[in-house]
Amino acid sequence: MGHSVPDRVENEELDVPSLRSSHGQMENLQSVHKVGFPPQRNFFREFKDTLKETLFADDPLRRYKDQPRSRKLILGLQFLFPILEWGRDYNFSKLKGDLIAGLTIASLCIPQDIAYAKLANMDPQYGLYCSFVPPLIYAVMGSSRDIAIGPVAVVSLLLGTLIQNEVDPVTEKAEYIRLAFTATFFAGITQAALGFLRLGFLIEFLSHAAIVGFMGGAAITIALQQLKGFLGIRNFTKNSDIISVMKSVRSSAHHGWNWQTILIGSTFLAFLLFAKYIGKKKKSLFWVPAIAPLISVILSTLFVDITHAENHGVQIVRHIDKGINPSSVNKIHFTGSYAAKGFRIGLVAAMVALTEAVAIGRTFAAMKEYQLDGNKEMVALGTMNVIGSMTSCYVATGSFSRSAVNYMAGCQTAVSNMIMSAVVLLTLELITPLFKYTPNAILASIIISAVIGLIDYEAAYLIWKVDKLDFVACMGAFFGVVFVSVEIGLLVAVSISLAKILLQVTRPRTALLGNLPSTMIYRNIEQYPEATKVPGVLIVRVDSAIYFTNSNYVKERILRWLGDEEEQLKAKQLPRIEFLIVEMSPVTDIDTSGIHAFEELHKSLQKRSIQLVLANPGPVVIDKLRLAEFTELIGHDKIFLTVGEAVMTCAQMAREDA
Amino acid sequence: MGHSVPDRVENEELDVPSLRSSHGQMENLQSVHKVGFPPQRNFFREFKDTLKETLFADDPLRRYKDQPRSRKLILGLQFLFPILEWGRDYNFSKLKGDLIAGLTIASLCIPQDIAYAKLANMDPQYGLYCSFVPPLIYAVMGSSRDIAIGPVAVVSLLLGTLIQNEVDPVTEKAEYIRLAFTATFFAGITQAALGFLRLGFLIEFLSHAAIVGFMGGAAITIALQQLKGFLGIRNFTKNSDIISVMKSVRSSAHHGWNWQTILIGSTFLAFLLFAKYIGKKKKSLFWVPAIAPLISVILSTLFVDITHAENHGVQIVRHIDKGINPSSVNKIHFTGSYAAKGFRIGLVAAMVALTEAVAIGRTFAAMKEYQLDGNKEMVALGTMNVIGSMTSCYVATGSFSRSAVNYMAGCQTAVSNMIMSAVVLLTLELITPLFKYTPNAILASIIISAVIGLIDYEAAYLIWKVDKLDFVACMGAFFGVVFVSVEIGLLVAVSISLAKILLQVTRPRTALLGNLPSTMIYRNIEQYPEATKVPGVLIVRVDSAIYFTNSNYVKERILRWLGDEEEQLKAKQLPRIEFLIVEMSPVTDIDTSGIHAFEELHKSLQKRSIQLVLANPGPVVIDKLRLAEFTELIGHDKIFLTVGEAVMTCAQMAREDA
Repeated sequence: MGHSVPDRVENEELDVPSLRSSHGQMENLQSVHKVGFPPQRNFFREFKDTLKETLFADDPLRRYKDQPRSRKLILGLQFLFPILEWGRDYNFSKLKGDLIAGLTIASLCIPQDIAYAKLANMDPQYGLYCSFVPPLIYAVMGSSRDIAIGPVAVVSLLLGTLIQNEVDPVTEKAEYIRLAFTATFFAGITQAALGFLRLGFLIEFLSHAAIVGFMGGAAITIALQQLKGFLGIRNFTKNSDIISVMKSVRSSAHHGWNWQTILIGSTFLAFLLFAKYIGKKKKSLFWVPAIAPLISVILSTLFVDITHAENHGVQIVRHIDKGINPSSVNKIHFTGSYAAKGFRIGLVAAMVALTEAVAIGRTFAAMKEYQLDGNKEMVALGTMNVIGSMTSCYVATGSFSRSAVNYMAGCQTAVSNMIMSAVVLLTLELITPLFKYTPNAILASIIISAVIGLIDYEAAYLIWKVDKLDFVACMGAFFGVVFVSVEIGLLVAVSISLAKILLQVTRPRTALLGNLPSTMIYRNIEQYPEATKVPGVLIVRVDSAIYFTNSNYVKERILRWLGDEEEQLKAKQLPRIEFLIVEMSPVTDIDTSGIHAFEELHKSLQKRSIQLVLANPGPVVIDKLRLAEFTELIGHDKIFLTVGEAVMTCAQMAREDA
Repeated sequence: MGHSVPDRVENEELDVPSLRSSHGQMENLQSVHKVGFPPQRNFFREFKDTLKETLFADDPLRRYKDQPRSRKLILGLQFLFPILEWGRDYNFSKLKGDLIAGLTIASLCIPQDIAYAKLANMDPQYGLYCSFVPPLIYAVMGSSRDIAIGPVAVVSLLLGTLIQNEVDPVTEKAEYIRLAFTATFFAGITQAALGFLRLGFLIEFLSHAAIVGFMGGAAITIALQQLKGFLGIRNFTKNSDIISVMKSVRSSAHHGWNWQTILIGSTFLAFLLFAKYIGKKKKSLFWVPAIAPLISVILSTLFVDITHAENHGVQIVRHIDKGINPSSVNKIHFTGSYAAKGFRIGLVAAMVALTEAVAIGRTFAAMKEYQLDGNKEMVALGTMNVIGSMTSCYVATGSFSRSAVNYMAGCQTAVSNMIMSAVVLLTLELITPLFKYTPNAILASIIISAVIGLIDYEAAYLIWKVDKLDFVACMGAFFGVVFVSVEIGLLVAVSISLAKILLQVTRPRTALLGNLPSTMIYRNIEQYPEATKVPGVLIVRVDSAIYFTNSNYVKERILRWLGDEEEQLKAKQLPRIEFLIVEMSPVTDIDTSGIHAFEELHKSLQKRSIQLVLANPGPVVIDKLRLAEFTELIGHDKIFLTVGEAVMTCAQMAREDA
């Protein structure tokens, strides 16, 4: 130990009654307590526990314990197909709620589906296909009661952009559609695999701030793209960034705009926005914005049909295939370079789709107070997309707008999705030909009014208020999407999210602690200006686990606190520091690099005749310090249960010293 | 607040004297303290502080404060060229130490340089070049006093493998060398840029465990490759994995081995290992292993020269260019596809070289108690490699073995590097032709005996003892190198290191706290089995900052603790939980997702008539909770300075309730 501290028996832990009186202002005397060593655990136990906490945090097998085999089978089936569970309690009053909700979301989804398919560069019927098969599968396997399944704007745009980079949607239409199904297939496989391997927590690496920015940017990008349909422009850029789009719009200003189109589009956009406003103003009128799109479609279609506006340059849908989803198993590339491309695109689409679906599921589960198993949801969503890819659907997921309508319309279970699906079936079988005269402008209006809701400026403002770095991430994602492309925006969002994590891990906070007057409590002197430093003792708290990423920083930061303090003391001619107490309460873990850093710290301090003292190391930390024999290096009597006790003892030692 | 708690004025913080007596066993009464709010800081201040702590943690500009302009210039020059600083105090006694150390490392580096050049698939003189120019540059700009600069085994092997993948070293020799210089140039640029942008902390993302595994694996790979020279095999595999090498060795067993080569090699290998053993046994004989390689080279060269063993199949060096480094500025590709390849290879080599140099620098700085600025070191190493690339050197860095010899031989400053450089200069100018008859087998023996030291099984054992997951990372890197390739091993090392960080961030620890008998202290009941739970109160500590990556997990984990506890209480028919206290001391930060999770937690608890209480939120956390109006949501009177005070007040409330 160097230095002149009275020799103690090294292994004896401190329980010395004579240390009871010390440290000026202290009123509350306490005996000194031992730091507890946790019970030894062997490697496999430890490994298993870590693995379990990481992958099975929600303990999904708990309910199978102590059950007979037949019961286990039933529980297992119910786990895979929650419909078997809630289906038994299904009754008429629930059906009433689901029926109303199902019809409402159906009326909303039909025009949206047709419009979103265009975002994905596909024919309108493909959008409707996605609202027929996937909701049925989800209703059987999913456990959210409120989510409305189908194609969504952001995923449609993402798929459209990514596939378009590989295959031209106009000249190589058949190949384009094959690649879309391939991507959908692999997206489903990815989602199911993530859920099955219980890696669902991976989607949490996309931070809330990044998602807000990404969604907002995507909404603006999508809205801008609608200028094509809205203004009736024929030659439009394929790029999605704001600069290319604006150039396209300007260059077509003289000859490309069509006033009839603009008239129809803006009239109905005004109508849609007004309906939205009414729905927001009065919650009980939620159905007004929900059916407004369908009404717009019907009215505008009638209008075009009667006036034959299509002969005056108003672009119309022209053709939708009749009939339900054809099989597309033979269109999926399972091998070859297209399979690889499909896999890459599918992976990206899968993550975005999952993020959206899980966020929706969680939000409504929290509102209605039921538990949602994220991993199980992923298996359901994945299976749904795999089957979807074989029945001519592209990636479907939960839609923000339709789920909200579903919730407000009083849905009770996933039956509302089945009702919607049935309505879509009828639409496909009977009335698709009627959409022939639907003007593209109306679809553009519907998309614009739908994606406006994705711009969550309130959330952005809250992020700005609470965490400026998060706001930078949010804006990075936003501008990445708006000025470059959806992929770049996504990349920016992911990178900033990861960089933020890594940064936090590399530069943990440290704080100087002081004594709150007339207590044994020691707190950050920046937060509690009334806290006073203890003469001769420097107390530093390290606010993070100490790992290889930060061990050097932590060591050097502690030495810097010490250096600064010593400089000040010297200037004021106060007594020098004799003890450095490191408050370890927030240090939840340490690795070999961390221990190494502490050894170096100890060595540095020894040379300056300062003693290193630890307060309240946690179970994992004290165990590792002991294994690495660091506790013996500094002496067991230098490890205390609380900062208060450490200070008390140090003050005592200093007095004995003097 | 729901529930029957007496209404308080919401904004009044708790300082109520009537709460003084409560909670059975408690002896030490304390008044309830306010949680401090930190002073408000504006965005730019906050942003600047974060940036400063991340990039300028060591405050390099501190010494320029309050200095006149001319002094600032001098300090700035001294900062860039530390030789200006330490040079002024240089004296004869220091020179003596440096002279001995310099001569010793020169005798060690000459044979090593020739051998390592072969690892990089280059002619022997290139190794010597790397020990001439780079050490001179480093001596002027570097701040480590003990590091010995030159080519090292692992970087040579890495460069050799990576460049060989692009260009064949035999058939396209000129292009190979050009690419090597290009890679070196970009490696230097990368290193200098990292240092200049103060991003040096990035190299800390390679964990200690991963480095131990990687180095061990590289050592074995390098040793295996030496079987070619050692056994005198002519047709040897280009792959570096153990399986290919062993196949090569076996297939050449019948006709390819040369007994004379094996005899020379194994004799001298035994000699080298014995010398190493002596050096380890007695620290004062450190010079024995240091000069053993040179002696081996001299003896074996003489032996071959006399016996003309080269005519009996013993492979010899045959030719080394005489003269110092020729310029190679015109050989560097600054543009084109080779520049891109060189950049990629240089980036990887730069990181590995930096990791090694910084680790060495830090180790010896800690031993001799001086500070080392990592970022400044990187600028020095980078500049050295940029200039090196223009003077026919490939990537040089600090060598473990030579630095240790340098230290033990009593080096005082970087002058020992200059001495070594001077000796290499003489060697290049005068005696290179004498190396003509040096057998390759002796070089193989030198490499084998050198890299054996990189296998740090003691460190691996300590890692195993302290942290099993770290050990998995270590072994992953090791087997990646040994069984696949150096790049794959490096990739595995980096991936595992990053995955470990991310995992830690996603699944933070939580703990139930209990009261230590007859104290106000609350600790983890797993670590302190004597700690008792407080009836009606559940105390949970969250051991990490709460961010988007873990906010959902934290919320669900807390609810699970609550659920488990309630089940137990029900079974034992004990009173139900009324208060959930979350100990926030280790929660150093929170983001919007985290606050959101707390809002949901609050909502869930409200439905169960349980009150959420927070203990000791830190400055950042309380500030953000206030900004997000969460403090008002749960009530300011639910936030306490310590768990003890929270429990006291809760017990009081419960009594008033009853």
